[in-house]
Amino acid sequence: MEEPLDLEPLFPDRAAGENLAVQLARRLREAIDAGALPAGARLLGTRQLAKRLGLGRNTVALAFEQLAAEGYLQPHRGSGTLVGVSGRKPARLGKSVRQAPPARAQLVASLRSTFEVARGLGPLRPGMPDLAKFPTTPWSRSARKTLNAYDGDLGYGPSSGLRALRDAIATHLRQFRGVTARADQIIVVEGAQAAMHLVAFVLTRPGEPVVVEDPCYALARAAFEAHELRLCPVPVDGDGLLVDALPREARLAFVTPTHQFPLGGTLPIARRTALLQWAGRKAATYIVEDDYDSEFTSRARPLPPLQCLDRDERVIYIGSFSKTLAPVVRLGYIVAPPHLIGAFSTARAIAGLGCGVHVQATLADFIEQGHYARHIRRMNAIYDRRRAILVNALRPALRLGFRLGPAQTGLHLALLGERGFNDVALSSALNGQSLVALSRLCIRRRDCRGFVLGFTNGSDAEIEAAATQLVERARVC
Amino acid sequence: MEEPLDLEPLFPDRAAGENLAVQLARRLREAIDAGALPAGARLLGTRQLAKRLGLGRNTVALAFEQLAAEGYLQPHRGSGTLVGVSGRKPARLGKSVRQAPPARAQLVASLRSTFEVARGLGPLRPGMPDLAKFPTTPWSRSARKTLNAYDGDLGYGPSSGLRALRDAIATHLRQFRGVTARADQIIVVEGAQAAMHLVAFVLTRPGEPVVVEDPCYALARAAFEAHELRLCPVPVDGDGLLVDALPREARLAFVTPTHQFPLGGTLPIARRTALLQWAGRKAATYIVEDDYDSEFTSRARPLPPLQCLDRDERVIYIGSFSKTLAPVVRLGYIVAPPHLIGAFSTARAIAGLGCGVHVQATLADFIEQGHYARHIRRMNAIYDRRRAILVNALRPALRLGFRLGPAQTGLHLALLGERGFNDVALSSALNGQSLVALSRLCIRRRDCRGFVLGFTNGSDAEIEAAATQLVERARVC
Repeated sequence: MEEPLDLEPLFPDRAAGENLAVQLARRLREAIDAGALPAGARLLGTRQLAKRLGLGRNTVALAFEQLAAEGYLQPHRGSGTLVGVSGRKPARLGKSVRQAPPARAQLVASLRSTFEVARGLGPLRPGMPDLAKFPTTPWSRSARKTLNAYDGDLGYGPSSGLRALRDAIATHLRQFRGVTARADQIIVVEGAQAAMHLVAFVLTRPGEPVVVEDPCYALARAAFEAHELRLCPVPVDGDGLLVDALPREARLAFVTPTHQFPLGGTLPIARRTALLQWAGRKAATYIVEDDYDSEFTSRARPLPPLQCLDRDERVIYIGSFSKTLAPVVRLGYIVAPPHLIGAFSTARAIAGLGCGVHVQATLADFIEQGHYARHIRRMNAIYDRRRAILVNALRPALRLGFRLGPAQTGLHLALLGERGFNDVALSSALNGQSLVALSRLCIRRRDCRGFVLGFTNGSDAEIEAAATQLVERARVC
Repeated sequence: MEEPLDLEPLFPDRAAGENLAVQLARRLREAIDAGALPAGARLLGTRQLAKRLGLGRNTVALAFEQLAAEGYLQPHRGSGTLVGVSGRKPARLGKSVRQAPPARAQLVASLRSTFEVARGLGPLRPGMPDLAKFPTTPWSRSARKTLNAYDGDLGYGPSSGLRALRDAIATHLRQFRGVTARADQIIVVEGAQAAMHLVAFVLTRPGEPVVVEDPCYALARAAFEAHELRLCPVPVDGDGLLVDALPREARLAFVTPTHQFPLGGTLPIARRTALLQWAGRKAATYIVEDDYDSEFTSRARPLPPLQCLDRDERVIYIGSFSKTLAPVVRLGYIVAPPHLIGAFSTARAIAGLGCGVHVQATLADFIEQGHYARHIRRMNAIYDRRRAILVNALRPALRLGFRLGPAQTGLHLALLGERGFNDVALSSALNGQSLVALSRLCIRRRDCRGFVLGFTNGSDAEIEAAATQLVERARVC
């Protein structure tokens, strides 16, 4: 050809904000790929094409040069510029096989549904703190203060987290939980989920067995499933994990001894000791202790975390600021046994040093100034009230055969239905809300029906209304 | 006993800021664990102990209650409180096995050394942008602006990243690199390292083969080694990957076609096409295209990224803001082929939703306002000057038998020594600085000696001085 059959698609769109040479090159490339400009066709000269399109000649020359480098155009001295071979065609014409993602990717993608059923929506969504009560003023003050202090340090931060934050966490854990950990045992991560992923990445290989509570926290289960671990569910009762049912071997045991999720039990000291002995008898067996809401449970006759009782470096303790402050903070931590510090710290560097230095400095200051302890005290009072409101609103359900799990502390409680109760049907029946059905959190057992009900993701009135609505619907069903 | 042999260790330390009941409980626990208070010993009553220690009686009672719950103390009506069994002893007395970390953890910990040899120190450290030129003023303006806009959203952000940022990245990639990707193909992560970790996590299982360039970027190699992949090194020449040496099968191929790291070649169009055909002939084989410094290389007669030529959804394109802005930003991205969007997005949720929403919003605004493009233009001019300074300062080395790799663009250049040259010895010999030795980046080949020299991590004078020092030492060796 002497010119494109249709110059129309090449006219510049100046509103797109795109560099005009890049735009022209892209459009010519598309035309060649689409076959509108066949190989061997001769293009207009740069001067003529520039004039027709209302572009500068240099712009057109630059686009031609780019396409020549790519092989789309072939400049020929004397005979102008010819259309070359489409850069896309060779890949297309080869014997390409339809893309089927590898098994691991299919598995990971299939876990999406876990997030939908495990989260819930509305005022009774468990585990979501009252974001309206976020301590904006002192937090912003810490943020501004540390912005100045960390102004000069724009490089990669330390792989285990900012020293100031690790010190603050160590002090907090000692005061609130009796956990005695040196700052260098603390690895700052983006939250409890990131902690579980890191633990699985560092300590496991596909196919290895992992003990999980039955029922258990669904997103922990999803993390282990994504790593292709073999789930070994161990049932829980009102006091937590039934340690007599532990399997002979496992690489990890994921437990919530302070406040079993979802049922609410507190693991007695004898079971704690038995669990530690179980792990201690084997080499390279670890207990992952998720102390996920201990700041809201440890007031009522607390038991020491497994981490405090562990003499054999078997316990990996994890915690998060998502529930005490807000998920947006995106910070949590691992307390590693000393012999694993090197592995976790290196793993953080390999996996990308996630946490921003500035938010770490902000949180360190916020804790040091006492705002964190103050905020937790304040929220404990609010959540105590909301728990009472929820328990009161659920009272009529108890006459329908429902029972309440241990409800003195924490950020959620379990409402247990009778055997055979269809919790899944009821969980999605509430308009604009969805409840977390207990049966969805079970792995092997079939005798656990009901709901995990939070009382922190709404005002007093909203929580009362949602609970009343739930009772009404349960009455109808 | 009627009282501890020594009350001294129990006296409160009010300066510690610790709750006094928690403190007393901790100290009693420690005394029992240490054997200073043997099982069966009788403690002073709460009233007496409180008086001696100068504490409130309630404080002591609370500590006793806590320890009773833990089994450390046994209250007996009439006969006072007896010391129980140490909570720690059972775990210690069991037949515990010395802890040996699993093979995966040992492997991960052993990769620490890679980070030391691969980074370098001083003005010639490669890959570290000039942090003194960080655009603080417009960045802070975007940060303040978006702080207000995102004030209300304190929950978990979207798993693939903030929509505004994904839109901004899509536009940037289209304008700068000709990459045509929809915003939903973009997965925001914490940087290129996080991207490689995520790719390995989602697409591979231990033992699977991964193609890497030889020599290659050491931290990419470390990420694949941590996932226990089998490295298949493919040599590079001055034009990049030797595609004829590709193995028959691999799960991944990690490549740097725009600007081979470390040698600097640009992969010609024919090799690009051949590489895509190689991947296209197999199901579930992917090319990871790390376009790590393309903002500083694409001006000089750029070739289209593999991503643009890919018709078979084989290419995963990764990029980062660590080199264009600063590592502290902790943001990068993956451009996923459409059929992998679900897997990557779910994997992000499973691995912990790392990126803070606020920094994402800040970067989105910074890009939209044109500051990002402006900053890149400005830095290109500065880096061009520094490259010229470095090349000039290295000139005497060329008379010693050294050669320069392609040095027109990017943030580093390769200084190649003669066969047998001991680059490792010289790399650590510079006081206060360390160079990245090419032989440390090689996997199988032994014919590649020299250094990767950055010219961005210092002022003009510092770079000149460091290069002069290097030449001096090379002359002596």
